[in-house]
Amino acid sequence: MLTATNQPAASWRRGGALLAGALGSLIACAMVGVVGAEPAAGAVEIQGFSPAAALAEVQLEQRFDADLSAAEIRSWMEIMASAPNHVGAPHDKANAEFQLKKFREWGWDASIETYSVLYPTPREVAVELVAPNRFTARLTEPAIAGDRTSSQIKDELPAYNVYGADGDVTAELVYVNQGMPDDYLELERQGVSVKGRIVLARYGGGWRGLKPKLAYEHGAVGCLIYSDPQDDGYRQGEIYPKGGYRPRDAVQRGSVQDLVLYTGDPLTPGVGAVPGAKRLAIQDAKTILKIPVLPISYAAAEPMLAALGGRVAPVAWHGGLPLTYHLGPGPAKIHIKVLSDWNQKTLYDVIATLRGAQEPDRWIIRGNHHDGWVFGATDPLAGQIALMAEAKAIGKLFKEGWRPRRTLVYASWDGEEPGLLGSTEWAETHAAELKSKAFLYINSDTNGRGFLGVGGTHGLQHFASEVARDVKDPETGSSVLLRAVAKERVEKIEAGGRGNPGTDLELGALGSGSDFTPFLQHLGVSSLDVGFDGETDYGVYHSAYDSFDHFRRFVDPSFEYGVALAKVVGRMTLRASQAQLLPAREGDFAASIAGFAEELHKLADGMRSKTLDVSKLLDEEAYKLATDPTRPRHAPARNSEVPYLNFAELDNAVVKLEHSAKAFDAEYASLAAADDTAAHAAQERLNATLGEIEQSLTDPNGLPGREWYQHMIYAPGFHTGYGVKTLPGIREAIEERRWDEANRYIGVVSRALNAYSARLDRAISGS
Amino acid sequence: MLTATNQPAASWRRGGALLAGALGSLIACAMVGVVGAEPAAGAVEIQGFSPAAALAEVQLEQRFDADLSAAEIRSWMEIMASAPNHVGAPHDKANAEFQLKKFREWGWDASIETYSVLYPTPREVAVELVAPNRFTARLTEPAIAGDRTSSQIKDELPAYNVYGADGDVTAELVYVNQGMPDDYLELERQGVSVKGRIVLARYGGGWRGLKPKLAYEHGAVGCLIYSDPQDDGYRQGEIYPKGGYRPRDAVQRGSVQDLVLYTGDPLTPGVGAVPGAKRLAIQDAKTILKIPVLPISYAAAEPMLAALGGRVAPVAWHGGLPLTYHLGPGPAKIHIKVLSDWNQKTLYDVIATLRGAQEPDRWIIRGNHHDGWVFGATDPLAGQIALMAEAKAIGKLFKEGWRPRRTLVYASWDGEEPGLLGSTEWAETHAAELKSKAFLYINSDTNGRGFLGVGGTHGLQHFASEVARDVKDPETGSSVLLRAVAKERVEKIEAGGRGNPGTDLELGALGSGSDFTPFLQHLGVSSLDVGFDGETDYGVYHSAYDSFDHFRRFVDPSFEYGVALAKVVGRMTLRASQAQLLPAREGDFAASIAGFAEELHKLADGMRSKTLDVSKLLDEEAYKLATDPTRPRHAPARNSEVPYLNFAELDNAVVKLEHSAKAFDAEYASLAAADDTAAHAAQERLNATLGEIEQSLTDPNGLPGREWYQHMIYAPGFHTGYGVKTLPGIREAIEERRWDEANRYIGVVSRALNAYSARLDRAISGS
Repeated sequence: MLTATNQPAASWRRGGALLAGALGSLIACAMVGVVGAEPAAGAVEIQGFSPAAALAEVQLEQRFDADLSAAEIRSWMEIMASAPNHVGAPHDKANAEFQLKKFREWGWDASIETYSVLYPTPREVAVELVAPNRFTARLTEPAIAGDRTSSQIKDELPAYNVYGADGDVTAELVYVNQGMPDDYLELERQGVSVKGRIVLARYGGGWRGLKPKLAYEHGAVGCLIYSDPQDDGYRQGEIYPKGGYRPRDAVQRGSVQDLVLYTGDPLTPGVGAVPGAKRLAIQDAKTILKIPVLPISYAAAEPMLAALGGRVAPVAWHGGLPLTYHLGPGPAKIHIKVLSDWNQKTLYDVIATLRGAQEPDRWIIRGNHHDGWVFGATDPLAGQIALMAEAKAIGKLFKEGWRPRRTLVYASWDGEEPGLLGSTEWAETHAAELKSKAFLYINSDTNGRGFLGVGGTHGLQHFASEVARDVKDPETGSSVLLRAVAKERVEKIEAGGRGNPGTDLELGALGSGSDFTPFLQHLGVSSLDVGFDGETDYGVYHSAYDSFDHFRRFVDPSFEYGVALAKVVGRMTLRASQAQLLPAREGDFAASIAGFAEELHKLADGMRSKTLDVSKLLDEEAYKLATDPTRPRHAPARNSEVPYLNFAELDNAVVKLEHSAKAFDAEYASLAAADDTAAHAAQERLNATLGEIEQSLTDPNGLPGREWYQHMIYAPGFHTGYGVKTLPGIREAIEERRWDEANRYIGVVSRALNAYSARLDRAISGS
Repeated sequence: MLTATNQPAASWRRGGALLAGALGSLIACAMVGVVGAEPAAGAVEIQGFSPAAALAEVQLEQRFDADLSAAEIRSWMEIMASAPNHVGAPHDKANAEFQLKKFREWGWDASIETYSVLYPTPREVAVELVAPNRFTARLTEPAIAGDRTSSQIKDELPAYNVYGADGDVTAELVYVNQGMPDDYLELERQGVSVKGRIVLARYGGGWRGLKPKLAYEHGAVGCLIYSDPQDDGYRQGEIYPKGGYRPRDAVQRGSVQDLVLYTGDPLTPGVGAVPGAKRLAIQDAKTILKIPVLPISYAAAEPMLAALGGRVAPVAWHGGLPLTYHLGPGPAKIHIKVLSDWNQKTLYDVIATLRGAQEPDRWIIRGNHHDGWVFGATDPLAGQIALMAEAKAIGKLFKEGWRPRRTLVYASWDGEEPGLLGSTEWAETHAAELKSKAFLYINSDTNGRGFLGVGGTHGLQHFASEVARDVKDPETGSSVLLRAVAKERVEKIEAGGRGNPGTDLELGALGSGSDFTPFLQHLGVSSLDVGFDGETDYGVYHSAYDSFDHFRRFVDPSFEYGVALAKVVGRMTLRASQAQLLPAREGDFAASIAGFAEELHKLADGMRSKTLDVSKLLDEEAYKLATDPTRPRHAPARNSEVPYLNFAELDNAVVKLEHSAKAFDAEYASLAAADDTAAHAAQERLNATLGEIEQSLTDPNGLPGREWYQHMIYAPGFHTGYGVKTLPGIREAIEERRWDEANRYIGVVSRALNAYSARLDRAISGS
């Protein structure tokens, strides 16, 4: 996981929306599927399966489950996390070869696909406070008692932010809070400029790469990013090794690639980084940043913050260090040096296939990455070992004579951490074939103890929920669906909200930060991202302490949530492979789109009234009167009024989609139960539609300024990086006050939705 | 100010409600009143004054202003803050005598009234951590360079919480966050009991006295209260002496009297503590607590928190110390010892009077207290020196031949800090006379640089706003009204709210924490509480560092806000004295009541749906599923359903009040302009009503369990202590789920409102 958070669950869930459900009926429903530990075969309903096929599927899944072993996945993690496994490390390649061997042992048709990518590594890094006093920041992480790998630093890279620029700069320091767009607006109101200065930003608030990018755009010459103990340290819980949270010297490494433009090798946008591919010159690669940037620990940041003068920072900008946070600039002066080898490195993607016996040209792809920042126990190996357990158990079924109906592709990606390199290059290399064959990409990354979280294509919400209904939670014996829904509902009520009668998971929309991005957002392949979390004490993200010893103490001590993840994703894979009808409930998709469209109305209306209110206050000089003249906070800039947008086209497209989805779902339900030859042609017609309908939602021109991102419903936000923006072409145009563009994308999105609806209509009419 | 906050402004302002105003029209309006520095005599409108009388009033106020001097009030503060001035200190008496001399010099009829009250002072106090390691807390505050009085500790008392119990206890420690009712609900869900233990609570969240009271009710044997640097220390700004915020060893002293039952001498509830008064035995005084309690600094709390084990506290409970906050219990074990002299002390109230020439039996009372916790520069002397400036300037007018129309009573209270002793005993002693004569009590306490804040009787909102319109802000040259309204509007918009077209201040409702309480809430005398704040760096509340040196650097360096406070309150006093019609706009009162009633509807409705939602989650065992089984958080207790309450009676009373107020205000407006003999009888009829109508809102039976509090509209919350509860009899019954009581108080309040409306009706009908 390359996202800048220590809360992996965040990516699976929608901001304020909660899953919710009338647990009463949910319990009843689950009881049909689960009696004690065993599904009550014969009574279970599975979307897209006839009753008889559902029975066979349940039996298949019981055989699948029987081969999963917590002890075994534990042993795999111990091996794979035994040495640094970043791109270019010997153990990264060794892990690929280890997996290749395993996949082949398990009966898969497996190989390693390699790509050559630009992957700079630092030769020299330094961070010093040079005034008003001197302090040299420690950039390495000391060994910790009881953490066996923390002393094995032979192959470890210095802590750095890959795809920052080289540089050697000395300048006054400015504290910029999280370094996000709103923070720069506040600095402007405080009268503080970062021009010619070095910024110190704390992690959080958005994609880490935005921090140096925005700093550069505001004139800064260097950037430091640190983990504040309020967000990621002792304020969250006891620090490692006493507890699982970030210790004083731990550093969050990470990519600062400008991934909102495109992901993968910076030199080969849109094409695979294969021999002979056209490569950009480094200076032309837009995803490489322009100023040096380094990550530091809170132990290193503390003397810098203590040396800052100037205004006291706004209270919300204060973190957890025992000092008063100031903005600067100066008197603290910082020296940063980054000197890198700008080399090509080889990626090792492990690709394992089981060819479909009946529909070989419909692919279900399952992926996780295998490269970490150092040892990578939780991130990514906790997900990787579940993937391996699935592959082993499916391999056993295969050896016993079972054949998948559709083709299964299991992928272990390299180079996710620097920028989804392995998955992106593979997806770009095989783009044409994937567009014609891939129905579904299922991703995982980290995993831990707790609650199931699923994000992805909203038409798959019921599919994911049925799977969750049929998997037992290791701690409570309840289903993972019931636990997830209970958690969301309790949190919602405790936050002051009202109950919600839904019984399904509510999928979070996907932004970026893991390997689903090239599939979903570049190619238009339906995707899901899956994992457990919520009871882990995981505060060592992207540090050398993300180790086997940390994992076994603070993340998933029994490894049973690794097994549970394998059960969930294994069912997704098997059901998507075996179902007569590919999984879909288009009403869920339509409802989500309707919700997003409503948000856009509210966004524009809210901005309109806010703009009027602020203008009025400006007219009346209220900001001037409201500020302390001895430390003035300037008035905000005046914005022009917000026009009324041409929402009618979008609203009509939403209504059309709701109608088409309803008709489609009815047809789907009636066909799913049928198992006669007459029905098969109709089923095939639906499947042909479902197999590629997601691509109706893409546009070859992509999003404004970033044509690589072609999905018109989901994208990482241009100014959040990792957080999703739904209906991004419209939403970001509104947020950035580009009204013509907003109206233009209302047209683009509406046409995509209408095309989607038309395909649904054609699928059931057979025309 | 005896309230537990370092934000004195809080008491003047309503929770979420903001003042707001269409500044455009306000600017126009103010321009009528103020041209450059001088009111444009002849064009000003003042409520209750005819145009000619308004002109005379403006001229009087100009003469009043001319006598105010920043240098002079600075010199008074320096004298009065030169030694500890708590109850019983030699300098407390000296300050009373100093003021007495001044008042007499200035032409007032002044005397000192004394009361003998129970005022325990500690003979021995100790706080130690005795396990797992040893640490003795420093309970004294070291001298600070540049703060001249910080070394003058001769007469200083040890830091303590007056009216806690004596005791010598050793027990395991539990961290209880702010120690408020919700915190104990959370502790119960976390499975942590305080029974037989000592609690450590941080300041904030409610009246300090509730912390040991609730701790006792939950079985604790001792209580420590500390100032967390997140709320009151380096997180707010640089600490003293570099900045104005609380340094590591500073302690917030303060009363823990159970003031929600009654204020004043604990032994003489309801009657003056005069010779011969019936006095309770100490053990029968309900406002004295049952367990020992001491305040400590964050330097003292840090090793205790570091030694706590048990569960990690919920994230919202973590403060600003650089450690992980745990709940305990233990292994930290604490020893607390408090041994006091339970003596009587003498209070010295200075009372100065100028008898009204025309209506001597209508009194305007103006008060501030003169006792502090140590040197008391900001609290209370910043308010006291404004009061003295007003008295001097009014005295000068008097010497020049001017006579007040109504009687002015200027009071300098003693013993506010331990529990509003001086004001309460005086108000109780003179209760009958006050009920018949006092029209208005105007209070101040602390004061600082920034924005005017006014709380109080809502019918006086326009009166206060007109005064604010006519006083220039020292920093901007604008009016203090425009600044206050601008501030509120900007804050509202920046918090995401919408603009509000009002042009007046919106008065905050008064809870408790200063000397208005016995007047407003016990006797039913209309009250206002006034002060400036918002640009001060005041982080030394109730410590020895609340000194002249601190004040002149961080609170009001030029003392011009002291002058501004004198201008504001002087105008209030003079206008209330001189107006043909006593100030009132009953529509404002009615609108406030309508707002409070609407809040009660929402409160009950919200509790009803929340109760149903929680019950549903309990039925479905959702809490059990949603919790981490390795550290379970128990489900909340099940509550019975919320019945529909008999709100119709209240709603009808509100409608009646709105009608009566509208008619009254129309009559008031038409009479105000008149200055002929025929109008005088009608004016006198209105004045007779306004002079005592607030008492219609009292009920002789008082609030449930606290009959001393007789006002049915405003009271300190039983479980907030300091924060206001409006319509408290109904609101608290709902909050505490006492449905019969809620319906009963709907009746009581409705009858009070109907009596109020009927008096308004009679005043204008003349019947």
